[in-house]
Amino acid sequence: MTFAQKLNSIVKNNNSLLCIGLDPELSKLPSHLQKVKDPIFEFNKAIIDATHDLVCTYKPNIAFYEAEGLEGLKQLEQTIKYIQSSYPEVPIILDAKRGDIGNTDRMYAKAAFEKWKADAVTVYPYLGKDSLIPFFEYQEKLVIILIRTSNPDAKMFQDIIVDGKPLYLKIAKEIATWRYNNIGIFVGATYPEELKLIRNIFPTSIFLSAGLGAQQAEIERAVKSGIDENGAGIMFNASRSILYASSGEDFAQKARDEAKKLRDLINKFRK
Amino acid sequence: MTFAQKLNSIVKNNNSLLCIGLDPELSKLPSHLQKVKDPIFEFNKAIIDATHDLVCTYKPNIAFYEAEGLEGLKQLEQTIKYIQSSYPEVPIILDAKRGDIGNTDRMYAKAAFEKWKADAVTVYPYLGKDSLIPFFEYQEKLVIILIRTSNPDAKMFQDIIVDGKPLYLKIAKEIATWRYNNIGIFVGATYPEELKLIRNIFPTSIFLSAGLGAQQAEIERAVKSGIDENGAGIMFNASRSILYASSGEDFAQKARDEAKKLRDLINKFRK
Repeated sequence: MTFAQKLNSIVKNNNSLLCIGLDPELSKLPSHLQKVKDPIFEFNKAIIDATHDLVCTYKPNIAFYEAEGLEGLKQLEQTIKYIQSSYPEVPIILDAKRGDIGNTDRMYAKAAFEKWKADAVTVYPYLGKDSLIPFFEYQEKLVIILIRTSNPDAKMFQDIIVDGKPLYLKIAKEIATWRYNNIGIFVGATYPEELKLIRNIFPTSIFLSAGLGAQQAEIERAVKSGIDENGAGIMFNASRSILYASSGEDFAQKARDEAKKLRDLINKFRK
Repeated sequence: MTFAQKLNSIVKNNNSLLCIGLDPELSKLPSHLQKVKDPIFEFNKAIIDATHDLVCTYKPNIAFYEAEGLEGLKQLEQTIKYIQSSYPEVPIILDAKRGDIGNTDRMYAKAAFEKWKADAVTVYPYLGKDSLIPFFEYQEKLVIILIRTSNPDAKMFQDIIVDGKPLYLKIAKEIATWRYNNIGIFVGATYPEELKLIRNIFPTSIFLSAGLGAQQAEIERAVKSGIDENGAGIMFNASRSILYASSGEDFAQKARDEAKKLRDLINKFRK
């Protein structure tokens, strides 16, 4: 089953475009979890059990696991195995921002898809097409290319003007000529105008977006800019606002409340 | 001790600008190593024992370890520990090509410098300055920014013309204004003209270069384009030509022979 098929099915069943970013920081976990064995995994498990019927995907960012060394990476593996055994309908995006020369990306692709067993991975375009082919060759997996990121300094290089247009649009237009069926697109939700421009270049591609604001008006603009003509085709990631909705023993219930609120708010603007 | 101090000392003592890329592929290891426990580590250990007096640095690319999952990453940790306990004078570059928003790069920086305990890491510029500050804050470590890569499609985006100049030069000039003392520069050795242009922008910075050709004339051009005014300031990486110089039981001795030959050839053009 391709990523697109898996995603279409869960978007419909859970009526959701919400992606939860599983980015646990040890120091931010509720204090009662700090002392248990595998605290990151136990935290993730509780979040997953509380939200699996509200999401269209989970997105662990590998940096948060690598920051705890082998111990953290072991808990990433546990987390992915847990989702795939308990909720196999939920696709998993490994947020890894990989990008190296082809020979090395062959290794990163093997890691993402065969070792971590993710359904999708995020990658960089900066090294050009040949560097990404090892990822595209896993045809059932989605390869999500970073076009425009959500951080304040994103504009520093991504918006450099080339022939009267910002660089990220030049890169997007080049990528739109590549003949692979499993290219996904990442655009930060903090820039709805950019999101709209890029959606126009890739009208039917699957998008991932992050950095959705807290205000209803910001969410409205991002959703309307990012959805495809069927009111779907995009996954909106939220992480800290859901994971750390409470630091008490009720963290999972509060995460569920927050996830439901955000899912419903996104849905409000999908029509 | 800063990376620069550590590097200066070993460049002098080993009379070497050679960096060996520790990028072991399980399927390419000599057959007698395929069945031992921790084959990647045992292979690396033999290569390191045979070459430590010929190099100025080792550069494991994390992709090659991640491709073997937790088992591979454990052997990366073993490899780094082995170098640091047996040959503490040799600095270690973690080739990881990291780059994400600031909050995530804080995690990648912690992973590279506190967990893997590398002396330097390679990073992407595409997300702008704010994304890289968490790396720069480790002032004793070197943060090596990819400016121009060595792969054939590097030109696709890195050479896009901006105001009459290729993008990579625009990015280089911006980075040259950043006030951090621990910025290193990566440029592929396959493009000596580009290497020269970028060296002119960063006359005193530490460079890392990879993809050195096999022909003497190619090596001459790369070395002359990349060295600083003291005939140093750059590390030339070689990986497969050294690691797989022989697939027999003599692989470590043959790797040494190859490393010595390349070190001496590079030195020939440093004057």
